[in-house]
Amino acid sequence: MPIATKIDKFLESASWIRKMFEEGEKLRRIHGPENVFDFTIGNPNVEPPQAFKQELKRIAAEPESGMHRYMSNAGYENTRTAVAKVLAEDSGLSFSPENVIMTVGAGGGLNVVLKALLNPGEEVIILAPYFVEYKFYIDNHSGTIKEVSTREDFSLDLEAIAKAIGPNTRAMIINTPNNPTGKVYSEQELEQLGDLLEQKEKELNRALYVISDEPYAKISYDGIKVPSIFKYIKRSILVTSHSKDLALPGERIGYAAVSPQMEDAGHVMEGLVFCNRTLGFVNAPALAQRLVTPLQRETVDIAAYQEKRDILYDNLTRMGYKMVKPQGAFYLFPQSPIPDDVEFIDKAQKYNLLLVPGSGFGKPGYFRISYCIDKQVILNSFTAFEKLAHEVGILA
Amino acid sequence: MPIATKIDKFLESASWIRKMFEEGEKLRRIHGPENVFDFTIGNPNVEPPQAFKQELKRIAAEPESGMHRYMSNAGYENTRTAVAKVLAEDSGLSFSPENVIMTVGAGGGLNVVLKALLNPGEEVIILAPYFVEYKFYIDNHSGTIKEVSTREDFSLDLEAIAKAIGPNTRAMIINTPNNPTGKVYSEQELEQLGDLLEQKEKELNRALYVISDEPYAKISYDGIKVPSIFKYIKRSILVTSHSKDLALPGERIGYAAVSPQMEDAGHVMEGLVFCNRTLGFVNAPALAQRLVTPLQRETVDIAAYQEKRDILYDNLTRMGYKMVKPQGAFYLFPQSPIPDDVEFIDKAQKYNLLLVPGSGFGKPGYFRISYCIDKQVILNSFTAFEKLAHEVGILA
Repeated sequence: MPIATKIDKFLESASWIRKMFEEGEKLRRIHGPENVFDFTIGNPNVEPPQAFKQELKRIAAEPESGMHRYMSNAGYENTRTAVAKVLAEDSGLSFSPENVIMTVGAGGGLNVVLKALLNPGEEVIILAPYFVEYKFYIDNHSGTIKEVSTREDFSLDLEAIAKAIGPNTRAMIINTPNNPTGKVYSEQELEQLGDLLEQKEKELNRALYVISDEPYAKISYDGIKVPSIFKYIKRSILVTSHSKDLALPGERIGYAAVSPQMEDAGHVMEGLVFCNRTLGFVNAPALAQRLVTPLQRETVDIAAYQEKRDILYDNLTRMGYKMVKPQGAFYLFPQSPIPDDVEFIDKAQKYNLLLVPGSGFGKPGYFRISYCIDKQVILNSFTAFEKLAHEVGILA
Repeated sequence: MPIATKIDKFLESASWIRKMFEEGEKLRRIHGPENVFDFTIGNPNVEPPQAFKQELKRIAAEPESGMHRYMSNAGYENTRTAVAKVLAEDSGLSFSPENVIMTVGAGGGLNVVLKALLNPGEEVIILAPYFVEYKFYIDNHSGTIKEVSTREDFSLDLEAIAKAIGPNTRAMIINTPNNPTGKVYSEQELEQLGDLLEQKEKELNRALYVISDEPYAKISYDGIKVPSIFKYIKRSILVTSHSKDLALPGERIGYAAVSPQMEDAGHVMEGLVFCNRTLGFVNAPALAQRLVTPLQRETVDIAAYQEKRDILYDNLTRMGYKMVKPQGAFYLFPQSPIPDDVEFIDKAQKYNLLLVPGSGFGKPGYFRISYCIDKQVILNSFTAFEKLAHEVGILA
């Protein structure tokens, strides 16, 4: 075997993704890309805000000496200060740059955090449906995955979480707004989760971390503000990126922040900085750090995303598709009208509709629609969704 | 324990680095930064070539739509094509973009390669003195470290390597030009290593990889050209970055390339692309990829580095310090004039000379000088080196 046995198995089990991708490419060749409705990708098709482009021009025109050199493994002090300021405002807690480490996106940040926290075999709770990469991230650092389902409306099932926590639990990953459901956990839910964890910490005499993955935190609708995790959960680590809120996924820029309410926050930060270095990230890209420093309150056009959500939700609901109305992110997670979600996705392809089965998120019986695509493509897709609804018998 | 026990131990054992750093800071405060001769850091103080700055301006002035989005996890096709072209020219082999993956620096690349190759407990040979991060990288992916010493002139000790290869060996990391010695492995050495590995592969019926870490490949002196590893070793994977040759360490841009002579190169590449994604790198930073695409033959001013090497080598040798003359990189690795290198480093600090003990590279009895600093600082340091030489008795 030329590569590690485990990696080989992962490649094999992920081969359906490749198959889907290849089918999509085939459809594009046959029907033309404009006639294929690709709802599979989480790659925002919008441009970064104008302020970002101006900042890039300014930096290029007035290059500072040393601006491409190594800095502290935690990142530039002034970038971390800008992040800490926003976190302090949102949480009311005393964040300082010493609570923040700049990372290679949220994916890099999650790996750094898991590496720093996990002893071999310790359990990490993830909530189904979940972003599938969590499983690989936990496995990278010899953790054990413990899946817990959310309720039917994708809210936290506190009883199930309570049952899952045991003497080997180290952490729990939550993701709000959620990929794939668009669910935003409420203040009440987070408060109850915080209470549960404090109680369990006492019971087990053991630190229990919540790692909150929030790249969609600024993409929320209907006036909902995503609550600051730090207000409700003492032992919390926020991991996020500017991939979605500034539309910079290719630049790999994000951060992790450790709650100042943790009495050992400094020790945890030392661990994160060490792991950022030794996992080979070393530091978040220098240019990207400079670029996002003044843009901590900037976002792409959220109203445009909300409009897409509304058009899709209203039209699909009208056709008989059943779903929880998402409060954030750019995904819908409707029920599969037939029991087998993979079979449903195959049927959809006949109408040039590319969707992802819920099985890919640990939740069979559902499918995901990603709507970070042109509005016109969404509008054009409804005939196909309608034909599909007829075929599976939800529309007469 | 708030963080993983292993990480905690690593932090503790690395505390001497922090101690050194803090001592340096203290000296700078007391004597002024201009009077402290800091030879510890590998952070080039030169600026990227003019062509880089122009390219950054051009990209900022004419932003392409979608230029900050995700691309293939392997990186942009045109960036990989530019890299493949240079590799093909240097090796005479038929490199294509399918042999190249863009990575978050060489550190990121090494982690991706080790993750893709290593089954738990498989051995990776490293050659002392070595870049200390290799140990963490191998440990990250559950590999076992096997140390082999180089000869007195830091050339490959093929007998020792032959002895170290066994049924559990998976790979060997070489680093040329070498950090900390500046040694460049000759064509003859690489050819002999290639022969040895082919023979051992047959004996053990097992694939043996050479991972060649070459961030200093373009920084070589006296007209020496660093030989292409691909010419001499069939199962070779090159890992490198533009941190040193374009002075961009903070931007985290590098690549890994798999020899087209490996019959299973495609399979190995699939493993690398998967691990680049699942370790959370996802892709090398988009802007940095664009920036380096047209600069594959550009470098910083190598003659300036050679001048610094010469000044240091000539003066220190004159004072009685003993060392092998480096052929590349920006390090000198002299013998410690007293048996205990850590004690020697302590003595040097009294003269405001900051050096790294050989123990930090798995080679006690030596010390490392990093000369990617201002020429004037080097010239100013000689009085201190002279006093130190007197104290330890090598200069009368």
